[in-house]
Amino acid sequence: MGAFDIVTQYGRMLGNVDAWLQAAITHAQAKGFDPEVLVQSRLAPDQYALVQQVQSACDAAKFAAAYLSGQKAPSHPDTETTIADLRARLQTCRTYLASFKAGDFAGAEERRVAPPWMGGNSVRGETYVHRISVPNFYFHVTTAYAILRHNGVPLGKQDYVGVRSWEEFGE
Amino acid sequence: MGAFDIVTQYGRMLGNVDAWLQAAITHAQAKGFDPEVLVQSRLAPDQYALVQQVQSACDAAKFAAAYLSGQKAPSHPDTETTIADLRARLQTCRTYLASFKAGDFAGAEERRVAPPWMGGNSVRGETYVHRISVPNFYFHVTTAYAILRHNGVPLGKQDYVGVRSWEEFGE
Repeated sequence: MGAFDIVTQYGRMLGNVDAWLQAAITHAQAKGFDPEVLVQSRLAPDQYALVQQVQSACDAAKFAAAYLSGQKAPSHPDTETTIADLRARLQTCRTYLASFKAGDFAGAEERRVAPPWMGGNSVRGETYVHRISVPNFYFHVTTAYAILRHNGVPLGKQDYVGVRSWEEFGE
Repeated sequence: MGAFDIVTQYGRMLGNVDAWLQAAITHAQAKGFDPEVLVQSRLAPDQYALVQQVQSACDAAKFAAAYLSGQKAPSHPDTETTIADLRARLQTCRTYLASFKAGDFAGAEERRVAPPWMGGNSVRGETYVHRISVPNFYFHVTTAYAILRHNGVPLGKQDYVGVRSWEEFGE
């Protein structure tokens, strides 16, 4: 399943989220509103606000790297209250993800993964990736994007994928 | 990378989308509004409406299955105008995805994938999956979910992942 490729891709996407937050600041300044308003913006009253979407995306990526490599995940407390805080959280997570090498994930497909919420039960690494980690990671990343788009931040699909043309894939 | 697992997961998620549309109909009936209003609902005026999000999610899944197996994708024209149309489109796509077997994706990681928009260029199957297909598929699925949530349809994370407890993973 390419656990290393997936963790690398998570890092890229979190870099894209950072660029969206910069775009949000630029947009707010141009429109003359406080960009920090966006930190608590949400699409529905009973859904996470931007701050929690970014925190959750970071955690989904962090736990995937830790679980699939058999390491203990570092603690990244959810203390962020500003866009600057969120950008620092993204950087902390990206630095952690970048510390992994392909060999760290040897046997990840068959490794048993036991998140605390499974109450002592576990699933195969492959199942964890496809059915839990990837859907959840992209859920939070896309919802963060949607909150910004809904609030007028000028973003497009190229900002989402973080690629301007096929040539950037380097192939 | 488990191309078969990814295509299978796409099919599951499209089944979840179908359940969200059923929930949307039930919600609209309870609230006394026309559920078809949701088909053209969107989060920003220059973003796709629900109809296009569902069509795009179907196409992302269809093309992944076709490209990674070296087959020609069937044509599924974007003619949907109602929720019933969208549910039929989802079913058509799911039936297509379900026609594949694991062996159809032998060598998918190294297979050259050349979507028309690459203008004759191509990328490795592995790159296509991680950097193009998965981010795009989940973008459209999550945005469809967000449009429904924003309009009050009572959905939660369990509806998103389509799993009520870890036991449903069958491990």
